Amino acid sequence: MMEKQKVLINGKRLKNTIEEFADFGRTENNGVTRLALSDIDLKARKHFQSECEKLGMTVVWDDMANMYATLPGIDNDQPPVVVGSHLDSVKKGGRFDGVLGVLTGLEVVRTIVENGIKPQVPIVVANITNEEGARFEPAMMSSGVLSGWFDKSTMLQSTDTEGITFGEALKNSGFAGKETNRLTDAAAFLELHIEQGPVLESESLQIGVVECVVGMVNYEIEVSGDSDHAGTTPMSMRKDALFATNNLITEIREKMNKLDDKLVYTIGRMNVSPNIHTVIPNKVVFTLEARHQDAKTIRQVEEIIQGLPESTGREKCEVKTTKQWDRNTVWFDEKIVNAVEQSAKNIGYSYKRMVSGAGHDAQFIATYIPTAMIFVPSVNGKSHAEDEWTPWEDCENGVNVMLQAVLDLTAK
Amino acid sequence: MMEKQKVLINGKRLKNTIEEFADFGRTENNGVTRLALSDIDLKARKHFQSECEKLGMTVVWDDMANMYATLPGIDNDQPPVVVGSHLDSVKKGGRFDGVLGVLTGLEVVRTIVENGIKPQVPIVVANITNEEGARFEPAMMSSGVLSGWFDKSTMLQSTDTEGITFGEALKNSGFAGKETNRLTDAAAFLELHIEQGPVLESESLQIGVVECVVGMVNYEIEVSGDSDHAGTTPMSMRKDALFATNNLITEIREKMNKLDDKLVYTIGRMNVSPNIHTVIPNKVVFTLEARHQDAKTIRQVEEIIQGLPESTGREKCEVKTTKQWDRNTVWFDEKIVNAVEQSAKNIGYSYKRMVSGAGHDAQFIATYIPTAMIFVPSVNGKSHAEDEWTPWEDCENGVNVMLQAVLDLTAK
Repeated sequence: MMEKQKVLINGKRLKNTIEEFADFGRTENNGVTRLALSDIDLKARKHFQSECEKLGMTVVWDDMANMYATLPGIDNDQPPVVVGSHLDSVKKGGRFDGVLGVLTGLEVVRTIVENGIKPQVPIVVANITNEEGARFEPAMMSSGVLSGWFDKSTMLQSTDTEGITFGEALKNSGFAGKETNRLTDAAAFLELHIEQGPVLESESLQIGVVECVVGMVNYEIEVSGDSDHAGTTPMSMRKDALFATNNLITEIREKMNKLDDKLVYTIGRMNVSPNIHTVIPNKVVFTLEARHQDAKTIRQVEEIIQGLPESTGREKCEVKTTKQWDRNTVWFDEKIVNAVEQSAKNIGYSYKRMVSGAGHDAQFIATYIPTAMIFVPSVNGKSHAEDEWTPWEDCENGVNVMLQAVLDLTAK
Repeated sequence: MMEKQKVLINGKRLKNTIEEFADFGRTENNGVTRLALSDIDLKARKHFQSECEKLGMTVVWDDMANMYATLPGIDNDQPPVVVGSHLDSVKKGGRFDGVLGVLTGLEVVRTIVENGIKPQVPIVVANITNEEGARFEPAMMSSGVLSGWFDKSTMLQSTDTEGITFGEALKNSGFAGKETNRLTDAAAFLELHIEQGPVLESESLQIGVVECVVGMVNYEIEVSGDSDHAGTTPMSMRKDALFATNNLITEIREKMNKLDDKLVYTIGRMNVSPNIHTVIPNKVVFTLEARHQDAKTIRQVEEIIQGLPESTGREKCEVKTTKQWDRNTVWFDEKIVNAVEQSAKNIGYSYKRMVSGAGHDAQFIATYIPTAMIFVPSVNGKSHAEDEWTPWEDCENGVNVMLQAVLDLTAK
C-alpha cells in the first residue's frame, strides 16, 4: 500500500492535455463547442486514439462509435477496469464537462506506464458517444444503448437541426465499429466528472465520492381560463390563467418546502397564451421537475402535484397535470464507492459522500457493471457554459483519486 | 318631443345591413377579417359610399382616408353632428366591433330621410381609418392624427407584415383625399360601440352611457437571477428568477386588491429565460397594465410598482421596473353624455352610466369636439373574436338611442 500512495499523476501534463483538447472546438470566450460526431469531435477522437496508441494501448470502437483504448494487464482474460466519460460537449460549453473524465483515464494510464507498473487486469479508457444529446437527442444515448435502456434503431433515426440522422453521422464518422466491441463486462466502471453544482466549493471540499444519481419526476401542468380584454373585464369576472398559476405555484412551493431539504425542484419552462400585454391570459403551461435520492420523497412530490385542485377557487380556471416521465435513483456499487472513498482518504483530500443531481453515462452503465463516480468542484456551480471552471489543482486531485482507485482495483 | 319619440329605426334593415357588411371579409366561423385598406376594406368602403349617396349624402375623404358622408341640414353653415366609428377589423374579428358604429349612422340617416325629417344642422356619418392598428400600428391611428396626437409623417411609415407602408396603402387605395376635408369642427361626435366587456350583460342592462375612456399605465418588470442546473443546485443556493417573480406577483396582487374595486390590472405577457425544463430560470420579464378612471388610483398603482424591492429576499434576484407609457382618463362632454342618457331614458331602455376600459377613436376626437359614446352589450364580453356577438335587438336598441340623441342635437 505504501508504495502505491507515492505514485502521483503529473498535474502539469494533465493541464496541458486538457488545454490541448480544448483546442478542438475552442470558442471565442475560451469555452468549447464539440458536438457529437461533428468534424471537430472526429479530430478530437483521432487525437485521443493516437495518444493512447503511443502508450501501447489498443483502440477499438463499437457500433455506437464508443471508443475503448485498452492497456493490457498481466491476466488479460480477466474483466478490465474501465475509466470513461465523453468527449462531446454542448454548444458553447466548457473545457471540463465530459472530456476531463476521458483525459483522467489517459493521465492514469500515462502515469502507470511511465512508472513501469503492470496492472493485474487490463485498463480500458472509454469515450462514450453523444452523452450530451446536444446534437442528437436523447442525452446519454450510447450508454443507454449499451445498457439496453434505449433501442438502437430508434437512436439511429435521431436527427440534428440540419436534418442529418445519427445513423448517417455515424456512417460518415469512420467510427462505426462492430457490435462485438461493445463494453459488456468489466470489474469496474469509474467516471470522474465536474460536479456541475456549488456544493463542494461552498463546503471547501476537494473530492465528491458519488453514491448515486438521484431519481426524478417530471410533470407538465396546464392551467386554462378565458382570454378577455384587459380593459373591459372587471377583476371579479375574470378567469385569469396567470393569476391562477401564481396561486398554484405558491401552494406547490409551500408544500414542497416542507419535504426533505435535500429535495430540489424547478419550474424551468413556462409559456403564457396569448402572451399579449392587453389580453388576460387564457392558458399557462409550465413544467415541474423534482429530484431526490429517496423514492419516498419523490412519492410525496407526486402526491402534492396530484393533490392540486382540478379547478382553482377565485380564478375558476381548470388545472390539468400530466406526468411526463420519471427515473429511479441509481445507486452505485458499494465496493467501488468505498474504493474511491478509501483512495481520497489515503491521499488525504477533504471529501464527502454525495449524490449526483445531474445524469451521467455512469448511471446506465451501473445497471450492468459495478460503477462509481468521482466529482471535482465546479466554481460557482457552473457547467454547460463557456465560463465553466475547475481549478487545475482540483482536476489534479481528482485524477490522483482515480489513479489510486484504479491501482487498488487492478492490483488483484 | 312626443313626435320625435315615435320615430324608431328599422331593426330588420339594420340587421340586414350588418350581415351585408359582414360579407366583406366574412370568415369560415362567421367572423370578419377586414384589415385597414385591404382590398376587402376598400370594397366595403365603396359600398358604404354608394349606400350613403343613395340617401342624397355627399361623401368625401381626407388625407388619412377618413370618410365623411354628409346629409345637409337646414342651416349648413352650422357645425354638423357626427356619428362615426370604423369599418376595419382585426384578423378573425367579429361582425360588430367598429362597423356597427358606422352602420348606426347609416341607419339613423335612412330613418331620418324616410321620415322626411329635415335636421337643423348637417349630419355626418364618418368611417375613421385603421382604428384597430391590426395591419398598421398604432391603434386609433387616424383619430390620433386628426387630434394632433400622432404625427402624420411617422404614421405614413408604419409597415404591415408584407412590408407595405401605410403611405403606400393609402396612395393605392383611391381614398387618399385632401387634408382640407378633415373633421375639424362639429357640434358633437357620437360613437356607438359594442361594450367588449361583460358588465351590461351581467347586469341585464340594454344601454351603456359612456362617461369616459379610463386612463392606464403600463410597466415592464424584469427579474434577474442565475440559471443553474436544476439537478445539482440546492434550493438554498439558487437565484431562481421564476420563484422570485412568483413572490413579487403575490405581493403586487395583495396590494392592488386593496385599492378601488373598479381598478383592473393585468399581467398579460410573461417571458421566461432560458425556458428549459431542466434549467433554473435566470430571467423573467413581464408586463403589468392597470386602468382606472381616477388619476389618484393610478398613482397608487404606480406607488406599488415603484415600491417593489430592487432585490428580492430569499431568491436574491434583481428587480427592474420600467414604465412603458401611460394615458390619462378622457372624460366625455357632459352635455352630449346627458343627451345620450336622456335618449335612453325617454325610450325606456334600462341603462347605466359607465366607463370604457378599451380605447376608441372617440377618445382622441373628444380632445377637440364635444363627444360621447353609447355601448351595447357583448355576449360573454367577447370581442376581437369570431364569436363576438351582440343580439340583434340590442343593436336595434342602441341605434334607437343614437337616433334620438341625434334628433335632439340637430333640432337646434
